[in-house]
Amino acid sequence: MGTRAAVVVTGTEVLTGRVADRNGPWLAEELRRIGVDIGQVVVVGDRPDDLASALRHLIASGADLVITTGGLGPTADDLTARVVADVQGRTMEVDEALEGRIAAIVERLVAARGWRTDPASTTAGTRKQALVPAGATVLEPVGTAPGLVVPPPEGSAAPPVLVLPGPPGELRGMWEAALATHLVRNALAGRTELRQHTMRMWDTPESELAASLRRHAHLTDRLEVTTCLRDGELEVVTRSAPEDAETIDSLRAALLADFGGALYSPEGVSVDDIVAQRLLGRGATIATAESCTAGLVAARLADRPGSSAYLAGGLVTYSNEAKTRLLGVPPELIDRVGAVSEEVARAMAAGARERMEADVAVSVTGIAGPTGGTPEKPVGLVHLCADDGRRTVHREVRLAGGRAMVRRRSVAEALHLLRVLLG
Amino acid sequence: MGTRAAVVVTGTEVLTGRVADRNGPWLAEELRRIGVDIGQVVVVGDRPDDLASALRHLIASGADLVITTGGLGPTADDLTARVVADVQGRTMEVDEALEGRIAAIVERLVAARGWRTDPASTTAGTRKQALVPAGATVLEPVGTAPGLVVPPPEGSAAPPVLVLPGPPGELRGMWEAALATHLVRNALAGRTELRQHTMRMWDTPESELAASLRRHAHLTDRLEVTTCLRDGELEVVTRSAPEDAETIDSLRAALLADFGGALYSPEGVSVDDIVAQRLLGRGATIATAESCTAGLVAARLADRPGSSAYLAGGLVTYSNEAKTRLLGVPPELIDRVGAVSEEVARAMAAGARERMEADVAVSVTGIAGPTGGTPEKPVGLVHLCADDGRRTVHREVRLAGGRAMVRRRSVAEALHLLRVLLG
Repeated sequence: MGTRAAVVVTGTEVLTGRVADRNGPWLAEELRRIGVDIGQVVVVGDRPDDLASALRHLIASGADLVITTGGLGPTADDLTARVVADVQGRTMEVDEALEGRIAAIVERLVAARGWRTDPASTTAGTRKQALVPAGATVLEPVGTAPGLVVPPPEGSAAPPVLVLPGPPGELRGMWEAALATHLVRNALAGRTELRQHTMRMWDTPESELAASLRRHAHLTDRLEVTTCLRDGELEVVTRSAPEDAETIDSLRAALLADFGGALYSPEGVSVDDIVAQRLLGRGATIATAESCTAGLVAARLADRPGSSAYLAGGLVTYSNEAKTRLLGVPPELIDRVGAVSEEVARAMAAGARERMEADVAVSVTGIAGPTGGTPEKPVGLVHLCADDGRRTVHREVRLAGGRAMVRRRSVAEALHLLRVLLG
Repeated sequence: MGTRAAVVVTGTEVLTGRVADRNGPWLAEELRRIGVDIGQVVVVGDRPDDLASALRHLIASGADLVITTGGLGPTADDLTARVVADVQGRTMEVDEALEGRIAAIVERLVAARGWRTDPASTTAGTRKQALVPAGATVLEPVGTAPGLVVPPPEGSAAPPVLVLPGPPGELRGMWEAALATHLVRNALAGRTELRQHTMRMWDTPESELAASLRRHAHLTDRLEVTTCLRDGELEVVTRSAPEDAETIDSLRAALLADFGGALYSPEGVSVDDIVAQRLLGRGATIATAESCTAGLVAARLADRPGSSAYLAGGLVTYSNEAKTRLLGVPPELIDRVGAVSEEVARAMAAGARERMEADVAVSVTGIAGPTGGTPEKPVGLVHLCADDGRRTVHREVRLAGGRAMVRRRSVAEALHLLRVLLG
């Protein structure tokens, strides 16, 4: 077992699911890069007892570094610094120089937004954020909250606790400074590099992958292999020491022999990147025509910086009228075969290419539910078409799950259909 | 302290951030509805020692019920059932009747997809999934994995562990059956109702809210109040016993007096629902014209079932050519003031209304970054316009954060601009 960190995410809004945590995953990836494994992530609400209990558990679990995120704001439900001080056996004291720096930041912020504020409430919030555990190293605020590295009680061999703010931009902006502190450097001194390799598969049952991995147990026994099914894609991820590089190559070759083209990305490149590279390679532009996904395919193509090089634009044709008006789909065709059909998917793709003067187009038309399904065309039926002017590929799928799941899976289907067309 | 549950989410893919957990939040909300509070959620990888350590910690933390999600699949890295059995002091045994039922499910699934499978690997996977802890109550599979309720060791007062599958559809489909089991009913027998109220604010500094909540401490002391800043929106959530209803009303009145219309949703209705209701109330249709958000606004309008009643469609005009071709924005206007400008935002909204024959339109044009910014027009500058033919409202914002954050915040700005226009 190498060097390990553990994370406590605080905030009732995360615990109760109103907000998705984006810090735990980011920290896991950053730690992995520098050779630190993450053992557990605990999410607690804004209750001091739960936070203290989680901290004590992770300290006892043998983590070399415990990291907290959130609970450093100016409101009274933000109490991480005080609880960490308690657990580490330290009193709280006002850092007056820090208080002055926070006050200056708040003043600039309020001025930039043109907000009217009450000076007394600003002062109270600033004072709270400048209260720090005795002996802690302060990390300069990126927003208004300082980070902290709080050492264990004097003479204890327990790990330090790194206290980071909850807003992802603030946490990320403070990360390098945190790693550079004496306390964190010492805590992570024993780390060794851990490499992660990803392979991606499409259109393969998980049980077949499981059987294949069992057959290659002489390889997988040396690696930590996890598999994950997400929006129809299977991901195989290995984590291992650098000296296991050959074993990974052997596993990759074995899976390629077993699955061929279904292992569409033996090096882990995402389908988004493959589609983008192939469009750039052809110097081609792309347009979308979407019904049930209503913009999600276009938005996904635009996720990548630099996508303006190939994304011409998109048409969200939610109504039949829009399909006719914007894409030129003949109304009598829709009357005859229905909006969710191979014919309409093909007409939508052709219309998008023509209307946007794009080289390539992809179309999606389906029944996302919960209503609108019939026995012949149930909820989850989706037709897709990709068209580059020389060739068209069509696909019909019946997707399980609710409205959100059907739409998300449809986006993945559209990306893979483009990959196949452009391949 | 009322009845409490705790959750262990298993899976290296969640721990390392490759997949966002959707089960913890869903369980928290379902439990809250039936009066059970959630104390901690622990995420662990596919390592038996970490899972066992997390289970022992939560059992010791005084939870009345511990729930695990994930790790029940056919692959070898799925080992939840065995570890839970160990922790609860129980051996594993094959449930042969269950094995037959799982085999029948797998057979149907493989036939429906037209997959070719190897019978031996299917049998091995099925056998693994039918291995259950002695004395456990089996919950019928929704996918292929059964759920389990595993009692504590004989004579122990420790809580039972409810073992649920990871795919959200399977977990949700099994939830009612889990609640109906004798073991879970007994574990949660002492519960009392806990009510959650939400208020939503827009365009308000968090420190002002904090000051207001401090001024009303005589009210907030009786309630558990948490605040959360998300994509520019402030959420105030209270959790309390039913007898505190009047205190909540008083707090709501106090915040309305302090913030007026910035507390745009005193009853917690989302901006999405407000916009949808106002469109339905007017019998109006809506169209979108998006540049940097590239479909995200249209997709968000389509998130709600029944959105086809008002969503006519949308135009993703990522390139300047598309703005001209699809929306009729004069190229000389773009040349003169730039694509990211009030004038172009207004022309995009007007063009979308006209081209889609919609009653209302909203437009977004901005610089999401990381490139494309200039000193006058930096990354994060976004112009929006909402237009209902009688009135237009324009807004210019400078958003912080990276590309994804700027795009997400822009979607929230677009929704709120529509709320204001339709208000």
